[in-house]
Amino acid sequence: MFVKNAWYCAGWDYDVSQGKNVLVSRLIAGEHVVLYRKPDGVVVAMEDRCPHRQAPLSLGRKEGDSLRCLYHGMIFAADGQCTEIPGQSVIPPAACVRVFPVVEKDSWIWVWMGDPAKADPSLICFSVGPDNRDWNIKTSHMQVNANYRLEIANLMDLSHLTWVHRTSLGGTMKYTEAGAKHEINARGVDTKFWVRQVPVPFFSQHLFPEGTLFDLHFHVEMTIPCNFILHFRVFLAGTATEGPSDGQLVLDTYSCQAITPRDEDSVDYYYSWGASRETDSPGMSDMLREALDVAFLEDKEILEGQWQRLKQRGPEGNKVNIIHDTGPGKLLHVLDTLLKAEAPPAARQKSAAQ
Amino acid sequence: MFVKNAWYCAGWDYDVSQGKNVLVSRLIAGEHVVLYRKPDGVVVAMEDRCPHRQAPLSLGRKEGDSLRCLYHGMIFAADGQCTEIPGQSVIPPAACVRVFPVVEKDSWIWVWMGDPAKADPSLICFSVGPDNRDWNIKTSHMQVNANYRLEIANLMDLSHLTWVHRTSLGGTMKYTEAGAKHEINARGVDTKFWVRQVPVPFFSQHLFPEGTLFDLHFHVEMTIPCNFILHFRVFLAGTATEGPSDGQLVLDTYSCQAITPRDEDSVDYYYSWGASRETDSPGMSDMLREALDVAFLEDKEILEGQWQRLKQRGPEGNKVNIIHDTGPGKLLHVLDTLLKAEAPPAARQKSAAQ
Amino acid sequence: MFVKNAWYCAGWDYDVSQGKNVLVSRLIAGEHVVLYRKPDGVVVAMEDRCPHRQAPLSLGRKEGDSLRCLYHGMIFAADGQCTEIPGQSVIPPAACVRVFPVVEKDSWIWVWMGDPAKADPSLICFSVGPDNRDWNIKTSHMQVNANYRLEIANLMDLSHLTWVHRTSLGGTMKYTEAGAKHEINARGVDTKFWVRQVPVPFFSQHLFPEGTLFDLHFHVEMTIPCNFILHFRVFLAGTATEGPSDGQLVLDTYSCQAITPRDEDSVDYYYSWGASRETDSPGMSDMLREALDVAFLEDKEILEGQWQRLKQRGPEGNKVNIIHDTGPGKLLHVLDTLLKAEAPPAARQKSAAQ
Repeated sequence: MFVKNAWYCAGWDYDVSQGKNVLVSRLIAGEHVVLYRKPDGVVVAMEDRCPHRQAPLSLGRKEGDSLRCLYHGMIFAADGQCTEIPGQSVIPPAACVRVFPVVEKDSWIWVWMGDPAKADPSLICFSVGPDNRDWNIKTSHMQVNANYRLEIANLMDLSHLTWVHRTSLGGTMKYTEAGAKHEINARGVDTKFWVRQVPVPFFSQHLFPEGTLFDLHFHVEMTIPCNFILHFRVFLAGTATEGPSDGQLVLDTYSCQAITPRDEDSVDYYYSWGASRETDSPGMSDMLREALDVAFLEDKEILEGQWQRLKQRGPEGNKVNIIHDTGPGKLLHVLDTLLKAEAPPAARQKSAAQ
Repeated sequence: MFVKNAWYCAGWDYDVSQGKNVLVSRLIAGEHVVLYRKPDGVVVAMEDRCPHRQAPLSLGRKEGDSLRCLYHGMIFAADGQCTEIPGQSVIPPAACVRVFPVVEKDSWIWVWMGDPAKADPSLICFSVGPDNRDWNIKTSHMQVNANYRLEIANLMDLSHLTWVHRTSLGGTMKYTEAGAKHEINARGVDTKFWVRQVPVPFFSQHLFPEGTLFDLHFHVEMTIPCNFILHFRVFLAGTATEGPSDGQLVLDTYSCQAITPRDEDSVDYYYSWGASRETDSPGMSDMLREALDVAFLEDKEILEGQWQRLKQRGPEGNKVNIIHDTGPGKLLHVLDTLLKAEAPPAARQKSAAQ
Repeated sequence: MFVKNAWYCAGWDYDVSQGKNVLVSRLIAGEHVVLYRKPDGVVVAMEDRCPHRQAPLSLGRKEGDSLRCLYHGMIFAADGQCTEIPGQSVIPPAACVRVFPVVEKDSWIWVWMGDPAKADPSLICFSVGPDNRDWNIKTSHMQVNANYRLEIANLMDLSHLTWVHRTSLGGTMKYTEAGAKHEINARGVDTKFWVRQVPVPFFSQHLFPEGTLFDLHFHVEMTIPCNFILHFRVFLAGTATEGPSDGQLVLDTYSCQAITPRDEDSVDYYYSWGASRETDSPGMSDMLREALDVAFLEDKEILEGQWQRLKQRGPEGNKVNIIHDTGPGKLLHVLDTLLKAEAPPAARQKSAAQ
C-alpha cells in the first residue's frame, strides 16, 4: 500500500546525468519508472514500459527531448505522446506512455506518483542538499530489503541509537531517555529534543579529550512517505540554551534521508550528512557520511530480520507496544490517514465500520 | 500453455553423446525429460522422474539399452517398462515410465510431447544442420528467462533488426520498411522479403569497402512451437533478381533456430548460422555464429524485461498494436488454434462462446 | 506438518559456545529459535523474535543469564520474561517471549517444540556422542533442501547403499537383499540385519587385502522426527555369531545422525561416525566421518531432485510401491500417528472418516 499523491525521491541529481545513453530505471511505489535528462537539463520521468508490448524503455535511447524505445523504434516525447512509429504513418491515440511530474530540489529528483493535477511542489520536504553552499553535504545510497513502514518506525524512534548504533552513531543511554516532543502535521511529524551531558557519537569520540561532554540538539522533520531531515547540533555541555547560542556551537550539521519504497519488500535509501561551512573541518563531513554507511548496515540487518518474521507470522507477532512506539505511531497514523483518503469509497466505508 | 502434439527440440546431437554416464536432463514444455543414447546410437527420451518416488532418472546410469535409477536400482527399458526391481521378484504394471517419441534430424534431437500415435516425423521442420556437407553450419545455445510467446513475437518481426540489433545484425532502417509477405500454413508461417541497397549487417561491414551496397534476401520458415529457419542471401546491389542469380551471390547462408519452452518463464534456445561451402571463406561461418551470440544477448535483455513487466501488469499493459505485430500475430494465431484444438471439449465450447 | 511434542536436535554443543556474543539462530520445525549459553553453561532456547516488533533476538547480546534485544534494549530473562524496557518503568505482561525446554545430551542440544509440560527427557533418543570416552566420534553438519519425510524414507531403506552409495558407503548388492527386520515402537523403529560375505564399504577397501570378506552387522534405532542411530560392526567373514563375538570383531562403530526439519523445504543434518577406542586406529575415525560427508552429498542430490519433482506433481507422481518401502512406511506411519494425535479434534474426525 502506497500513498499515490506524494513526492517520492528518485535519487540524486548526479544519478541522471547528461551522458549519451543514461536512462535510469527505478522501481517506485510498485511502478517501473525511467528517468532521463533532456538537453536543457530538465529531468523526465516516464513509466518504464513501452505501451506496445511492455519492453523496458530504459533499454532505449535519448533522441533530443524524446526517448526512443529500442525494440521497435517508437519515439515518445517528453509529455509521453508517441510521435513516431517506424514503418507506420498513423499513430493511434493509445500510443502514449504515462509521465510523472518531476521536480529537482536540493540535488534530489522528486517524482509525483499520483494525479498530476495535484502535484504541488510546495509539498516537497525541506532539505539541505550537496548543492547548498553553506553546508558541506556528502551523499550515499543503499537498498534495504524490508517494507518501508519498518523504516518509518526505525527513524521515528531515536531510542534505537542507544542499542542498534551503540558503536557507531550512539554510545549512551540518553537517547533512550530523551523524551522527544512530536508535533504532528498533515503530511508528517516534527520532533525536537536535547540529549545533554553526553559524549559525542561513538564514531567521533577519538577527536575529543576523553570525558569531554556535550549537549546534542536534534530537530527532525519527517514527512511521508519516509523522508527524514535531521538538523543535528553539538554544543559544549552546559553552554547551549534553547535559543540561538552559536558561540558554544562545536558542530552544526544536516542529515537528509529519503527512503523510497520500491515495492512492499524493499526500499531505496538516499541519504546524506554534512557540516556547516562554519563548523566544518577537513575530512569531517566525509567522516559523517561514512558513519551513516556503517550505521545503516546495522539497521539493515535488523529490519530485514524483522520483515522476514513479520511476513511469516503477520501483525499478531507484534505482541506488545512500548513507549518508543509513540513517535512511529504518529507518522504511521499520518500515513494511514492519507492512504485511507485515497482508497475507493467502498473501502473507506468498510474501514470506518470496523 | 503448451501445444502437446508437437516436436520440441531437445538440443544438439552432440549434447547426448555415447559417454558412459551421459544422461541429459531437460525441462521441455513443463515436463522433466531425461535423454540418453543407446549403444546402437538411438536416443531415448523418458520422463526424468522415477515412478517409485520421483527421483531424477538423470542421476542414474545407462545399462545396455536401459536406464537404471540409482536410488533403488530399478531398471527401465527403452520402452519405459520396468524390467528389474532389485530385491523383489514381481514387477507391478504401474512400474513404468513415460517415454517420448524421438527423431534425430539435421543434428537436432526432436521429442514429441503429446500422443505418441500422432507423432508424425514429417511434421518436423526443415532445417540445415552442421552435418550437412554443403553448408558450414556453426552451433550454439542460450537460455532466456522469458515466455516463449515473446520469442515468437520477436522472431516473426524482422523490424527489430533496425533497433535491437543496430550494432550487430542490423544497421539500417530498411528492415523496418521491408514489408515482408507472410504465408500462413497449418503449423507455421512462411515469410519472404528483400532488403535492397543496404550495407551488409553491421558486424561484417569491416570486410567490404566503405559504401558498398548489397541486396539481402530473407526467407523465413517458422513453425510452432518456435522454430525459425532463415535462408539469408547477400547479393551485390542491383544484380539480384527474384529468380536464381547465383552469379552475383556474395554469401549464401542458413541460420536455424529452435526455441524450446522449458516452462512458462524460460526457454532453451538452440541456434546456428553458417555459409554454403561455395560462398564460405575461412573464419566466415565462425563470425556468423559469434554475431548471433552477441545479438541474442541483446534480445535476451529486452525479452526478460518485457516478461517481468507482463507478469506484473498482465496483458492490459499491451495498450497499442502496431504494423509490426502482423507477423507475430499470424504465428501466435496458428499456435492458439492448435492450443484450442487440444483443449478439453468444455474449454473449447466456452472459448467459442466468447 | 511437524510433530510439536518432540525433541529436535538444534546442533552440536560446540555450536553454542560461551563466546561473548555467540547467539545462534536456528529454524526448527518452522519456528525461529535463538540459542545461547548462560554463564553457568546451561543452554537457553527462545523464540528468535522480539515480542515488540519481531526483531531477531539473535542480533542481540547476552547479559548475565539474560538476552538483551539490541533494537530497543528490552531484556528477557532465561524464562522468557521481560525484565527491563529502557525508558519505561512498567513492563506489560505480554512482554515475554516463548522459551523452549532444552536438554544437552551426548554433545547434542535438544529442544522441545511443543507443550513444555510434556517435555520428558527420557524421550530423547539414545546416542553415542563425541564426549563418550569409549568411542572416538567425529562430527559434521550439512543442510539439505528437501522435506524431512524424504530423509526418513532414505534412512529407513538401507537398500539405497547399493545404488546411491555404490562408490562410498556401499559397494555390493547384498544391502538390497539384506531383508532387515523392523520392530515398531511408540516413537520409532528398531532395525537389525546382517550383510554377510562382503567386502568392507567401498571407501575403506584399500585397507584390506583384495578379496577379504567380512560379515557386517547393522543395528539402527530410528526415532521421530528423524533421528538415526547406527551401531555398525565389522567381523571377519564367518566368525561372527548372533551373540557376542568380539574376538573376531575388526571394527566396532557408532554413527549418530539427527535430521531436524527447518521448514517444509529444508533440513539441518547433524551427524557423526567413529570407532570404539578398542578397535580404532590413527586416522580411522576421521576417515569414517569423511565418508559420510561424501555420501550425504550423494543423497542430497537425489533428495533435492525428488523434492522438486514432488512439489511439481504432488503425491500422484509416486505411482508404484516396492519392497523397500516397508521400512520407510513403518516410521512414516509412526510419524503420521503422532501428527494425527496432535491435530485438532475436527481434523482428526475428518481424517478418520476418509
